Amino acid sequence: MNIFEQIPKDLKEEVFETILSSEKLSIERIISHGQSSPLSGWYEQEKNEWVILLQGEALISFESKEDVTLVAGDYLHIPTLEKHRVAWTQPNVVSIWLAIKY
Amino acid sequence: MNIFEQIPKDLKEEVFETILSSEKLSIERIISHGQSSPLSGWYEQEKNEWVILLQGEALISFESKEDVTLVAGDYLHIPTLEKHRVAWTQPNVVSIWLAIKY
Repeated sequence: MNIFEQIPKDLKEEVFETILSSEKLSIERIISHGQSSPLSGWYEQEKNEWVILLQGEALISFESKEDVTLVAGDYLHIPTLEKHRVAWTQPNVVSIWLAIKY
Repeated sequence: MNIFEQIPKDLKEEVFETILSSEKLSIERIISHGQSSPLSGWYEQEKNEWVILLQGEALISFESKEDVTLVAGDYLHIPTLEKHRVAWTQPNVVSIWLAIKY
């Protein structure tokens, strides 16, 4: 299995795919294609998340700290309940994320 | 922080760096530079491991199944106690792994 392959053709919405799911953690591939989170809302997750952008470019906003720009290879940790949203992903390019939630 | 940057200069031995460590899981960056595991021994870990090769090329051998060749983006799951070794990594290229142990 390769993280850069088998990209779905329909990318009108962001695609969330579970690669691994266990009691202790989940590993997801997220594919964005110019999408951003709904302007109206923040993600506020009950789990900790470690996320790495493996392809593309993105901007993540946080409610209580500065925006973070991500290029391929950049990773960050988003603790439980830290409000964040994907403010921007590169248009015309498939952005590929790997997210570990635990 | 970027997974492809800040590569140590001394790569005579494989480099293991802990990115995140919690009760439930650890996330490690492993950097190989032509190394392979000692011929004499197998890795036989008490934890499950999900590993993705992000740069370079490698060959993993298993005691009880066929070898797996990995190129950038390839991932695999190595269950607890499955005996395996890194039989080969590309020489003259820095191979970068991300390993999630849980």
